[in-house]
Amino acid sequence: MRTFILILQCQDQKGIVARISDFIFRHQGNIITADQYSTNFEGGFFFMRVEFCVSDDVKKESLNVDFATLAKEFNAHWRIYDKTDNLRMGILVSQESHCLADILYLYNAGELKVKIPFVLSNCLKHEQLVKQYNLPFIFLPATKDDRRENEILERVKNETDFLVLARYMLVLSKDFLCAYSKDIINIHHGFLPSFKGPDPYGEALRKGVKIIGATAHFVNEELDEGPIITQEVECVSHKDSRDDLVRKGRNLENKALANALFKYLDYRVIRHENKTIVF
Amino acid sequence: MRTFILILQCQDQKGIVARISDFIFRHQGNIITADQYSTNFEGGFFFMRVEFCVSDDVKKESLNVDFATLAKEFNAHWRIYDKTDNLRMGILVSQESHCLADILYLYNAGELKVKIPFVLSNCLKHEQLVKQYNLPFIFLPATKDDRRENEILERVKNETDFLVLARYMLVLSKDFLCAYSKDIINIHHGFLPSFKGPDPYGEALRKGVKIIGATAHFVNEELDEGPIITQEVECVSHKDSRDDLVRKGRNLENKALANALFKYLDYRVIRHENKTIVF
Amino acid sequence: MRTFILILQCQDQKGIVARISDFIFRHQGNIITADQYSTNFEGGFFFMRVEFCVSDDVKKESLNVDFATLAKEFNAHWRIYDKTDNLRMGILVSQESHCLADILYLYNAGELKVKIPFVLSNCLKHEQLVKQYNLPFIFLPATKDDRRENEILERVKNETDFLVLARYMLVLSKDFLCAYSKDIINIHHGFLPSFKGPDPYGEALRKGVKIIGATAHFVNEELDEGPIITQEVECVSHKDSRDDLVRKGRNLENKALANALFKYLDYRVIRHENKTIVF
Amino acid sequence: MRTFILILQCQDQKGIVARISDFIFRHQGNIITADQYSTNFEGGFFFMRVEFCVSDDVKKESLNVDFATLAKEFNAHWRIYDKTDNLRMGILVSQESHCLADILYLYNAGELKVKIPFVLSNCLKHEQLVKQYNLPFIFLPATKDDRRENEILERVKNETDFLVLARYMLVLSKDFLCAYSKDIINIHHGFLPSFKGPDPYGEALRKGVKIIGATAHFVNEELDEGPIITQEVECVSHKDSRDDLVRKGRNLENKALANALFKYLDYRVIRHENKTIVF
Repeated sequence: MRTFILILQCQDQKGIVARISDFIFRHQGNIITADQYSTNFEGGFFFMRVEFCVSDDVKKESLNVDFATLAKEFNAHWRIYDKTDNLRMGILVSQESHCLADILYLYNAGELKVKIPFVLSNCLKHEQLVKQYNLPFIFLPATKDDRRENEILERVKNETDFLVLARYMLVLSKDFLCAYSKDIINIHHGFLPSFKGPDPYGEALRKGVKIIGATAHFVNEELDEGPIITQEVECVSHKDSRDDLVRKGRNLENKALANALFKYLDYRVIRHENKTIVF
Repeated sequence: MRTFILILQCQDQKGIVARISDFIFRHQGNIITADQYSTNFEGGFFFMRVEFCVSDDVKKESLNVDFATLAKEFNAHWRIYDKTDNLRMGILVSQESHCLADILYLYNAGELKVKIPFVLSNCLKHEQLVKQYNLPFIFLPATKDDRRENEILERVKNETDFLVLARYMLVLSKDFLCAYSKDIINIHHGFLPSFKGPDPYGEALRKGVKIIGATAHFVNEELDEGPIITQEVECVSHKDSRDDLVRKGRNLENKALANALFKYLDYRVIRHENKTIVF
Repeated sequence: MRTFILILQCQDQKGIVARISDFIFRHQGNIITADQYSTNFEGGFFFMRVEFCVSDDVKKESLNVDFATLAKEFNAHWRIYDKTDNLRMGILVSQESHCLADILYLYNAGELKVKIPFVLSNCLKHEQLVKQYNLPFIFLPATKDDRRENEILERVKNETDFLVLARYMLVLSKDFLCAYSKDIINIHHGFLPSFKGPDPYGEALRKGVKIIGATAHFVNEELDEGPIITQEVECVSHKDSRDDLVRKGRNLENKALANALFKYLDYRVIRHENKTIVF
Repeated sequence: MRTFILILQCQDQKGIVARISDFIFRHQGNIITADQYSTNFEGGFFFMRVEFCVSDDVKKESLNVDFATLAKEFNAHWRIYDKTDNLRMGILVSQESHCLADILYLYNAGELKVKIPFVLSNCLKHEQLVKQYNLPFIFLPATKDDRRENEILERVKNETDFLVLARYMLVLSKDFLCAYSKDIINIHHGFLPSFKGPDPYGEALRKGVKIIGATAHFVNEELDEGPIITQEVECVSHKDSRDDLVRKGRNLENKALANALFKYLDYRVIRHENKTIVF
């Protein structure tokens, strides 16, 4: 048996679920799990994720062809993924290595179903860590004044299906985002929408908040404004110094990013306008 | 338009979702939200909750008749609820009033979609609180030695669809459970399966745990062993006295019980063996 | 034995703890619990809370006189409270009653060690709830255009030691704050510093956050900018409607406000610049 | 300036704090932070942790001699630590490597102020990970039937100040504990006191709990019964498979163990009977 995942979104309308589940039934498939959601309060959008298994004979190509006809009727935006196909994830990282280390550990442990074509950094020091996992390390000494986005683009454009900014501190330009045009997931070390920008822990300290957070989100053209995927929080007190916030924050960042990647790699994250549906 | 909720469970088999969504489609219905779950690891059980709306012409009786034929094929255990029909909830309470007060506040605020035929207690002091909400109060001075279950049964048997033990400290006998034979939801002031029995806070204190909890669960024949619906936790430290635990616990108990009731009254809780599926 | 609480803050300097604990020892007192904190990173401020018991013979007045001499040496800001003296808390409330109901329940249960001289509201509907607890209810139909702050001030100025805004939706003017000049605790239904202003749940929904919060804080001249005392958070998802956020938020607001009041009434909250030390 | 930490416990009695802070004052010291706690409900025990700095001239030896006289009066159990002295932590690990990897990452990042003389395991596969950090790896193929405790003891007895069982799945015998006679910290992958023993996730699954946890605790002669230091929890649902629990649990275990070690290495954990005071 082979397992496929169908992701679909369209205007809400009668009979979608019936037609889709009938489509699977007619292909002798069995629904393993199905999630759906309708935004009746915002103009009626419909979102669905169906994980189903079919006989080994059924090819993805023929599923695609067959489903295209059906999807046309609903004017749906959709895609079918083979569960065994792993996405290619490019990792960009600057100074801080904790998220990188956590991702590589999870990858190595078989927890993250993903291919990692390379880790790209403007800090040479991560080379050893990356090499331990037998992954290619690309050292590209980009700076605020020379972001070298063309060189980055050259590497990521064809070799990756999406990017992870595992504490990459250089802002990517609109041109880069436009040219890359695939998903980019960022981990922000603050509880968005509070504390955007480069020093969220300092601001949390000055503000005297009693809870800090971390946020994994898609990158869009507005800094730290893209659709939120996951958030994690932890209590702090007046006793916590900046170092304490940074230390507690690391755990939050690791957890928020790992959870976002688990969901994303299982095709459970759907972007819709400036928000996400996370099944 | 009228909204119905279908709850169904059966052995997992191909095409169930397709058949059910087709059933709704053929009745000109639209699926508002659907949840499903299969336990492939435990012998393959299938659970579904579908909320759908149909024209006002469609009667629940005819839906029931039509669906019965379909359900028979799957050998399914099922039920269709009219979303506007409120269940009748009997409340039993002993000494502690915080859960009772919280439930009545939420009921009065229109948050809990439920009818409350009466509050029954062995403590006369709750009469004033109950009367404020214009609800009948039944004083029945049951004790450990004389639980007066026959009198309780007489009241609850026909007048209620389910019971809530809002800190009711007398254990209900097997005979009572058998005779009542409908759902009974209990709030336990401890993090089950730890700390069963009457003094969970004292035990938490003696044990020196760093987190305490509360658990809302269905009552079955084993004390504090029934299927868990919701749990809530909070951090404690060596500084917390018994009074502190009790105070923090009250908030947990209110929250766990209220959340359990919200889910239950929206028909989102399915019992399966000694566990629950909470959609 | 009588129990007193000393609160003190001053520039950090050698020997403060030694001198203070010696002061208590010389009065035949025993320290029940002591908390202290120094901000070595912000210019060296020192904060202390000492709870100690002394013989019934020792009068608060003489303690005050004796301690004044010592405090002068440290140039400290300080105060000694008799643990059995309850503060007088004025409550202001607008439309939403859940925080009011929770506070009154806790007050009635003996949990909040406080006197409540009155509840003041621009909504007549809360009268019944307040009367149930045998507390005076003041109906003052203030509006955005006519805040009637003079009348409020007249009532609160002498009859209260501090105010609680239990979801009071009219902004208090600088003049009012200046004239009242005592502590005012507000519950904000959002996770500050995000989502200031009157519609935090709507903004949380539009922003698609995955966690919502509530914040109890002191009121100062900037709207929703005063020192934070407590914060509470809870997870939400794309499925949660505005009503769901409001419902979940109520629990957070109750909890954040109740916790803030417990700490405040036990003299555990010290304001320092735009932050709080909460022992 | 040098920083010392005094840890003390004794029967509660008048004037302890005064005498101790006076002691520090007389040595021209300044208290950086002080925590204390009295168990007035359990027979009156007193616990204190004072962090203070003194001139470089002051030697630990002379502090020890001077304080011994004072401590004798209180019949106190006490110890003074030099903050710059790092404890020697031996790590024992079996099959699972996530806690080991996390500890080594934190150690390497300078977060854990500790010396690691070696990592000892019955799994050869961890050698590479340990070698990356230039730490000695000891392979000792102990099994349930041949625990080789004498060989372990030989290594740990003199070379370590305490042990961490970073998922070490062989139970240590009473004889071993007795012979080692220093602190041993274990991470248990369950929310104690629930789910003792080797398969807490399986039991959590069978029981259908809605929250799982991890517990860091001192090892004593009863399996998974020693004093709890830290606990961490996370929500689960009916959807979570065993693998999901294990995955979520890893994060909890890392966090609980790291937090316990941070506290322990800062001398903030005091054992008292079967509980801990964590300042």
